[in-house]
Amino acid sequence: MSTSFARRHIGTTPADQATMLQAVGHPTLDSLMDAAIPPAVASSFSPSTDGSGALPEAATEAETLAELRTLADANTLTTSLIGLGYYGTHTPSVIQRNVFENPSWYTAYTPYQPEISQGRLEALINFQTMVEDLTGLAIANSSMLDEATAVVEGMLLARRASKAKSRTFLVDEDVLPQTRRLLEHRAEATGIRLAFADLAAAGSTLPVTDDGEGYFGAFVQYPGASGRVWDPSGILAAVTAAGGIAVVGADLLALTLLKAPGELGADVAVGTSQRFGVPMGFGGPHAGYMAVRKGLERQLPGRLVGVSKDADGAPAYRLALQTREQHIRREKATSNICTAQVLLAVMASMYAVYHGPDGLKRIARRVHDAAASLATALTGAGLTLEHESFFDTVRVTGLDAQAAWDRLRAAGYTAHLVDAETLQVAVDETTTPADLARIATAVAGTVTDSREVSDAVGHLPETLARTSEYLTHSTFHRYHSETAMMRYLKRLADADYGLDRGMIPLGSCTMKLNAATEMAAVSWPEFAGLHPFAPEADSAGYRTLIADLEGWLAEITGYDAVSLQPNAGSQGELAGLLAIRGYHRSRGDEQREVCLIPSSAHGTNAASAVLAGMRVVVVRCDEAGNVDVADLHAKIAEHGEALAALMITYPSTHGVYEHEVRTITDAVHAAGGQVYIDGANLNALVGYGRFGDVGGDVSHLNLHKTFCIPHGGGGPGVGPVAAKSHLAPYLPGGGGVREQVSEGADPLANPISAAPFGSPSILPITWAYVRMMGAQGLREATGAAVLAANYVAARLRSAFPVLYTGDGDLVAHECILDLRPLKTSWGVTVDDVAKRLIDYGFHSPTMSFPVAGTLMVEPTESEDLGELDRFVEAMLAIHAEAEKVGAGAWPKDDNPLVNAPHTAAAAVASDWSHPYSRETAVYPVPSLVRGKYWTPVRRVDQAFGDRNLVCSCPPPEAFA
Amino acid sequence: MSTSFARRHIGTTPADQATMLQAVGHPTLDSLMDAAIPPAVASSFSPSTDGSGALPEAATEAETLAELRTLADANTLTTSLIGLGYYGTHTPSVIQRNVFENPSWYTAYTPYQPEISQGRLEALINFQTMVEDLTGLAIANSSMLDEATAVVEGMLLARRASKAKSRTFLVDEDVLPQTRRLLEHRAEATGIRLAFADLAAAGSTLPVTDDGEGYFGAFVQYPGASGRVWDPSGILAAVTAAGGIAVVGADLLALTLLKAPGELGADVAVGTSQRFGVPMGFGGPHAGYMAVRKGLERQLPGRLVGVSKDADGAPAYRLALQTREQHIRREKATSNICTAQVLLAVMASMYAVYHGPDGLKRIARRVHDAAASLATALTGAGLTLEHESFFDTVRVTGLDAQAAWDRLRAAGYTAHLVDAETLQVAVDETTTPADLARIATAVAGTVTDSREVSDAVGHLPETLARTSEYLTHSTFHRYHSETAMMRYLKRLADADYGLDRGMIPLGSCTMKLNAATEMAAVSWPEFAGLHPFAPEADSAGYRTLIADLEGWLAEITGYDAVSLQPNAGSQGELAGLLAIRGYHRSRGDEQREVCLIPSSAHGTNAASAVLAGMRVVVVRCDEAGNVDVADLHAKIAEHGEALAALMITYPSTHGVYEHEVRTITDAVHAAGGQVYIDGANLNALVGYGRFGDVGGDVSHLNLHKTFCIPHGGGGPGVGPVAAKSHLAPYLPGGGGVREQVSEGADPLANPISAAPFGSPSILPITWAYVRMMGAQGLREATGAAVLAANYVAARLRSAFPVLYTGDGDLVAHECILDLRPLKTSWGVTVDDVAKRLIDYGFHSPTMSFPVAGTLMVEPTESEDLGELDRFVEAMLAIHAEAEKVGAGAWPKDDNPLVNAPHTAAAAVASDWSHPYSRETAVYPVPSLVRGKYWTPVRRVDQAFGDRNLVCSCPPPEAFA
Repeated sequence: MSTSFARRHIGTTPADQATMLQAVGHPTLDSLMDAAIPPAVASSFSPSTDGSGALPEAATEAETLAELRTLADANTLTTSLIGLGYYGTHTPSVIQRNVFENPSWYTAYTPYQPEISQGRLEALINFQTMVEDLTGLAIANSSMLDEATAVVEGMLLARRASKAKSRTFLVDEDVLPQTRRLLEHRAEATGIRLAFADLAAAGSTLPVTDDGEGYFGAFVQYPGASGRVWDPSGILAAVTAAGGIAVVGADLLALTLLKAPGELGADVAVGTSQRFGVPMGFGGPHAGYMAVRKGLERQLPGRLVGVSKDADGAPAYRLALQTREQHIRREKATSNICTAQVLLAVMASMYAVYHGPDGLKRIARRVHDAAASLATALTGAGLTLEHESFFDTVRVTGLDAQAAWDRLRAAGYTAHLVDAETLQVAVDETTTPADLARIATAVAGTVTDSREVSDAVGHLPETLARTSEYLTHSTFHRYHSETAMMRYLKRLADADYGLDRGMIPLGSCTMKLNAATEMAAVSWPEFAGLHPFAPEADSAGYRTLIADLEGWLAEITGYDAVSLQPNAGSQGELAGLLAIRGYHRSRGDEQREVCLIPSSAHGTNAASAVLAGMRVVVVRCDEAGNVDVADLHAKIAEHGEALAALMITYPSTHGVYEHEVRTITDAVHAAGGQVYIDGANLNALVGYGRFGDVGGDVSHLNLHKTFCIPHGGGGPGVGPVAAKSHLAPYLPGGGGVREQVSEGADPLANPISAAPFGSPSILPITWAYVRMMGAQGLREATGAAVLAANYVAARLRSAFPVLYTGDGDLVAHECILDLRPLKTSWGVTVDDVAKRLIDYGFHSPTMSFPVAGTLMVEPTESEDLGELDRFVEAMLAIHAEAEKVGAGAWPKDDNPLVNAPHTAAAAVASDWSHPYSRETAVYPVPSLVRGKYWTPVRRVDQAFGDRNLVCSCPPPEAFA
Repeated sequence: MSTSFARRHIGTTPADQATMLQAVGHPTLDSLMDAAIPPAVASSFSPSTDGSGALPEAATEAETLAELRTLADANTLTTSLIGLGYYGTHTPSVIQRNVFENPSWYTAYTPYQPEISQGRLEALINFQTMVEDLTGLAIANSSMLDEATAVVEGMLLARRASKAKSRTFLVDEDVLPQTRRLLEHRAEATGIRLAFADLAAAGSTLPVTDDGEGYFGAFVQYPGASGRVWDPSGILAAVTAAGGIAVVGADLLALTLLKAPGELGADVAVGTSQRFGVPMGFGGPHAGYMAVRKGLERQLPGRLVGVSKDADGAPAYRLALQTREQHIRREKATSNICTAQVLLAVMASMYAVYHGPDGLKRIARRVHDAAASLATALTGAGLTLEHESFFDTVRVTGLDAQAAWDRLRAAGYTAHLVDAETLQVAVDETTTPADLARIATAVAGTVTDSREVSDAVGHLPETLARTSEYLTHSTFHRYHSETAMMRYLKRLADADYGLDRGMIPLGSCTMKLNAATEMAAVSWPEFAGLHPFAPEADSAGYRTLIADLEGWLAEITGYDAVSLQPNAGSQGELAGLLAIRGYHRSRGDEQREVCLIPSSAHGTNAASAVLAGMRVVVVRCDEAGNVDVADLHAKIAEHGEALAALMITYPSTHGVYEHEVRTITDAVHAAGGQVYIDGANLNALVGYGRFGDVGGDVSHLNLHKTFCIPHGGGGPGVGPVAAKSHLAPYLPGGGGVREQVSEGADPLANPISAAPFGSPSILPITWAYVRMMGAQGLREATGAAVLAANYVAARLRSAFPVLYTGDGDLVAHECILDLRPLKTSWGVTVDDVAKRLIDYGFHSPTMSFPVAGTLMVEPTESEDLGELDRFVEAMLAIHAEAEKVGAGAWPKDDNPLVNAPHTAAAAVASDWSHPYSRETAVYPVPSLVRGKYWTPVRRVDQAFGDRNLVCSCPPPEAFA
């Protein structure tokens, strides 16, 4: 901590960089960057390095922790009784320490390489099994971004899957308020009408629609936002009888006592797993969930973990049905979701594993008893309950609600003030008998006998009492002692490869250091314990932190306004496109609906454009991988007044600084279009150029890429959206805290996530990163990242052609290695190379994106020269192995590449019959003998798993 | 957290226990315990289970954390300027998270099994190399308990190694006050005279002694306690010229700028590594150090890591020269130290690895610049420096020191008030320029120009400027980025086997769960940041916690007073024996010097008795392993009035509840002796019996055994000493906080450690354990532990005879399995079985203690039935393998046992020539295929390493 943090974050020393520059052929880093970045980009920006600009000078780690402590202390923690989807919970310490604070879990990448991800895949299949069991539905995915977005996805799924010819979605009025707001915002852009009604009162009769077309689906909250528990089976039956899809938003803890949605007739269940051990964190991140009945599994958005088998026939987990995904289906995608909340899903699943079904039921019973006790005390004090049936939320009416709310605040509690005469109190597993006595006294306004409080009657309808079993799999019964749990978590972590083992050189994903100091504050209760709807003054520290971060990100990107609400890049992208849509429509340009997207774009771009109500038109790329400017002009001319936007990525998805970016953005503007710059590759630009200065109107960033939020094994992500001032009013929250403060914008406007600030509890990570790097450090990181990519390119291009380069024959922060010649010449596939890299102790670079048959390598600035050289050594050794295959030294169907990866079990098997040695298989280079990562399974058969879809915990005998 | 913590801590469920009781042949746990524990022991105590006694009722994890938070808040943190061996330091976050808060590091055991301890052994050899380089001496051990005890050990070493015939040890007056106190207390019992003198004034001339015999050694503090830096080479030369041994206590950080002790003529250097990233923690734990010149290595106390080779000739680390150790040499031992401060030494070594020599020098330079700046500011304000030469500590004279001290306190700083006219201010790496300005202003009493403060001149004598290099090994140059450091720590952790992987069934060591909730508070700054000599009011929370713990431990053991000061079991034992000595002498019984020790006793007992000035007489044991009562009576009669004490362990070191304990203790008392009961096996007694009730006068406990402080890979330990009231005045601190509060005892009396409360920063662990278990939970844990041991005994006794049993043919909490028949019948050694257990994924039980050729198994209460059965399966499978060797199926010199453990590299080697398969070698049972622990080296050659002693980092080429 006594030295500059940038020197800890950046892996290469000045001496290393001199060595690397020599390989690249530039005398200095400045010379390299000058040559790589087109003048029109580079000249636009140079960050303040003297502390006079908006970006801070670098602080030390100790100073940064002290400042975060001050921000934490500026938040006010009360005991939340607000509920509404967010509850106090006890994170078991064993999970806190061994998952949440363990880099082996949080630095891992999305499990696209299943062989090196078996640990978190098992944890996720536990999550799926937990959701399936509790909801009583056949198949659950491995998490959603939050409950409100899960409901939106449920609505979109219902539209796709419905047999009813209708464009109306029926929503019970007792829906969570944040869900209602998001539904309204998202439905509009996709042409869906919403109809709200009191479905509990409707019995089994569907309300009549204006157009007489009925409903393609319906949504019921269970228990309702008001706490009410009622039997929705009649209305659900009516919906499905009419060909519609019935979606239920259910509380997982309540489902341990209440009949499951699947038992009530739901096709789809959605919700959140927050209260399973994940702190409220001022709104997120948490793992939402979605489960569907059999027959709808191929409609599921997001990620789905399934069981398949490996090359030895052993069971192996992997992501299933990936062909559904938006990066493959592009504009045909039905959802733009591509991040999950893996780390949070892991925590929630482990909470269930640790407590088991009996433990969960005990917790639920205690929570309900607490609510019932409270109800008894309050009615005993003369108050009136609005609903007789409830799980954890007591709503009382006919009192001076504001006065009661104020008394609760004075006692250290924050309840939900419904209206002048109605107050709502939600209890949770942290509520103690002493709390109940204090709460009852404060609400009633008179001292309430505490004996009364403990003398409760149940308030769950007997007809809804759950009788079916759940969590019967042995996994939920074996790890109930802390020792057993700790070892289970260790064993799973040991199966996985994270940044704590070695480089994860994933092009476009920027797997850089997640420094321990950056992570520290996330564990602090002052950041973790706040309810997202707490009174504004309670989050003063958070708001300062958010305003700082918005300002810094605006300065870095050259925009005027930033919203941190989107809790994934895809959501930031959608929010940005919706802002463009809102802007055009505000000017009467409803006809502007064409979104131009280069052929090289990430598939999510197209998926998001569709969900923003746009029509995708593809612009060609030239041989160098750049936007074909002539084709762009042609497309602009062709669509004329219909042009809404162009989406480009800068540097391009090919990893180069595209020379003509100014020409491109000018052309779009001249035609009345807006320019969306995808910020996925911002790591190549920070401190050297700004989106806002090269013609961008709006961008999303990825804090989990450029700004050090760990990938968490596939989530959480944060995808802020940043824009020029003319788009600011259309951003989530009307443009962010800074704008709210200065202009009174509506924090609830244009929502894209459930919570006003999305996933704020992980924002201290990015705040700390920027604070410790300072303007100068951020710029140095960019230079180091670009140098590292060019060094790898220079070292490897003799073996693997570098597919695209920009000015000076240089790449930006990543390079695409062309492996197609290995296939055509020697029959070795990119898959073989990727899997063989596992044997060498590496995570594969990005495979076949953006070009099939290639590897895109992004080392980032955090790797040291030793690790870069180890990667170069591995790639050259693999090339030599491929050459041997080509030369016939090894058969095409039996060689170290096609058989990769090799497990220890395979390497010690007595019946070794391969034409290469066991040592060649698992110790191809000597450095592996000390510190080898052993993959637990051999190559996973993807197709088998999709043909034989199993998305729940397999029986223990499967592993025998 | 919602359920009882005891259910998380205890591994076996009621259903499991029923299964186990069936195997043991008892209907209930009560029946088992009634049969096992002799009535005279069992009837004496039953803890209060209704909350009315001194022991609390169980609190939940959440309640306990909340109570600890309240205790933490009751401490007052100021910025310490006290110095005197304890300094503010920045623990690098990457070390905090990945070592200090990572169970893979802290749950490991002492590295007696080197094959599964290579990670921490490498970290410790880094520590040794660091100490050797900085002190300029040939060989350092792998840590001492603290600086003051290291000086005592240096004095004892000097007496052993000196050629001077003298019993006087010369000590510079500028020694740390806590060191002086400890020297005085310890010298008395061992017949050493101390002579204090101002050696800086003495030049090169030794002061004359009363007896004219000169000195067997001398000690110099460098820099001095007063901050003074002077050149001691003249006096050191005079000491060694007279045949004495020159011992220097040196500050490691200062040594990056100052000439090394070895360069100044020291034979021995001692000190602490606290300021290398280990928080002050109100006094500890920290790693002390000791280094010696070539020729003295076999005199080194404590543990020494050396390099040897494994069965394949590969370099491998292991503990060197273990034959020096107290548990082998018993009453011939020269030291009773058997714990090191491994976890803290690892942290300090990693601090050096992370900063490297240049980084350390930069930190030292900045610290010195800060002190020099302060001196300039203070002299500029008219104040007078006592010493012109200093490193980090500025002593000013001729001022109203109390007033200055008060002004500093008001500004948030705590300095060292020397006397009415003298104030001492020590700065450290956490001191900022803003601090300096505030400090200068407060000390001077007038606003001091901050420009002055930064305009410093150096105050290190040029003649003492260090010119020699240090930390040149590549390990100190390769891990300076956080990514590289994180991976290095992960790679080392991966090499090791801790409780996070599986059972460590070490008889007499009680390797039980170290729960994450217990560990949480240790990281909190309010516990970590306090200086041990802070004003008493600052530690109010600590004192409450300590008083609670003393009360609880007194209640559990049946004693009246407890001192938590001893920072290791051996030190508690020594403190207890010194208390007996003090008691006898207070009654005029100077002649009582015989200490009776049963032949089965742990070797440390005898070593401690010698260091307490006693003479050891061994009492025989009978065939059942119990004290031979007839021989006891004979020995008592023989020594008559010379009898000082009997030391016994209860339950015995043979793991049984000795039936005659009352007879034994009564006999000793009748003869005027005191009974010392070694508390190593307390885990078999808590809640079922009390030492104080069976005749004990004094005991030491091991909080790192029975009370959940993690072993840390070989330390820290805490060894409280508990006694009846008549011995209380002779305990460290006069009997503990409770006694101080009530009777005004001297907290500095009878010191046994440097700090008044030893290692207080880890006491929250034990506090939390007792708080969460409550009286009932503690008793349940004992029952579960005894049941587990008897279950293992019952399952294994057909294959391995259980050597000793007590009443009902039952063992206590551990069982000794006799492996000698395997040797005699089949030629398989206990070593072979221990190493073969590694292949099965286990840490060996205790080998050949207390009986050669046996394994002592202590499963503890934390293991679940699945893990116990896995161990039984492994032991039976190994027995079958041994049988095959005996039957000639495998040669005696080439079989899976004698070749164990097998590395992955060995198992995949092409030239496999063994008469058993590779699968048999590494996957002898199927469950290993998923989740195998791979040892990084094969069996280590102990003798080779001792013959070729290398105790520094080997060159990297050694591993090529």
